[in-house]
Amino acid sequence: MAIMEISVIPLGTCSTSFHGFVSEMQKALAATGLPYALTDMGTIVEGDLDALMSVARAVHEVPFLMGEKRVYTAIKIDDRRDKKVHLGQKIQSVEGI
Amino acid sequence: MAIMEISVIPLGTCSTSFHGFVSEMQKALAATGLPYALTDMGTIVEGDLDALMSVARAVHEVPFLMGEKRVYTAIKIDDRRDKKVHLGQKIQSVEGI
Amino acid sequence: MAIMEISVIPLGTCSTSFHGFVSEMQKALAATGLPYALTDMGTIVEGDLDALMSVARAVHEVPFLMGEKRVYTAIKIDDRRDKKVHLGQKIQSVEGI
Amino acid sequence: MAIMEISVIPLGTCSTSFHGFVSEMQKALAATGLPYALTDMGTIVEGDLDALMSVARAVHEVPFLMGEKRVYTAIKIDDRRDKKVHLGQKIQSVEGI
Repeated sequence: MAIMEISVIPLGTCSTSFHGFVSEMQKALAATGLPYALTDMGTIVEGDLDALMSVARAVHEVPFLMGEKRVYTAIKIDDRRDKKVHLGQKIQSVEGI
Repeated sequence: MAIMEISVIPLGTCSTSFHGFVSEMQKALAATGLPYALTDMGTIVEGDLDALMSVARAVHEVPFLMGEKRVYTAIKIDDRRDKKVHLGQKIQSVEGI
Repeated sequence: MAIMEISVIPLGTCSTSFHGFVSEMQKALAATGLPYALTDMGTIVEGDLDALMSVARAVHEVPFLMGEKRVYTAIKIDDRRDKKVHLGQKIQSVEGI
Repeated sequence: MAIMEISVIPLGTCSTSFHGFVSEMQKALAATGLPYALTDMGTIVEGDLDALMSVARAVHEVPFLMGEKRVYTAIKIDDRRDKKVHLGQKIQSVEGI
């Protein structure tokens, strides 16, 4: 099980406001059924690696579907095979919960 | 005002568990007095750019102070000069709060 | 056509030296037949998005195949649908070649 | 000694073409006197950590000086205290030069 963070950024939009895109990307994420959390800098999703790659592929496509011409996507994957990892777990581990 | 995400990863540790490092980095962050939030993939901090760079410098140093020999740090900064941005604001904007 | 940068980092290795991993990842990349370039901070690959996602999936798996237990992968994708992009093109554009 | 990769991306530009920005950022980098290399996905610089943070600060500011209102910067730092690292060294190590 892995944790992925993804940030999808349309480039060359005339506006500096992106919440329309973020809102559409959240819908694409919700449709996957995977646990996810929105942060100030991206979205964090929990799943097995193939599911996460498929989510990344879908979310990256959203701005193109909305008419954009260039999209920059940053992905970080933390994949552990020695133990199960879940969304929220690292935070709890640090906070001693 | 800008938002920074920072992930500091010690390399070449014999253990795959990092919560000791993360806990020390949280203390370094708390000491700065800046608003911050821990996520599953890093820490998000709000502040002006010079303060954020100074935080990045301090947090990156933590694993070295604990005896590590190699540290990999990933930083993303979203800096807006057209409006004030605050931690939690993007999430609220998407959720329509 | 898109350009992807990928950095695959095994965590919890006792050694701070990674060139054995990097060497195996290069073999996996060469096997794809896609144009790629090694940099000091990762590998840059050119291809269509599905091919790039498939490469990312394969390269991320390399350290696990070598016995590692935790892998951290960072991916950046710059995807343009308004023009063809190729490896080396941005550098030439800046250098005025 | 550390190696830093930095990508500075202006957001909300009406154009999808960024080579004007990249060209100005190269001038700012050249002015630092530090060794650097341009890649298809960013710029890689070699130096001690304080010098690198100072470079990051300067390069991040370039699009604002050109009138932009929002800038997204991604930085990765690979900092080793167990050996000297130099630009080009990892590539040579993998290629067995």
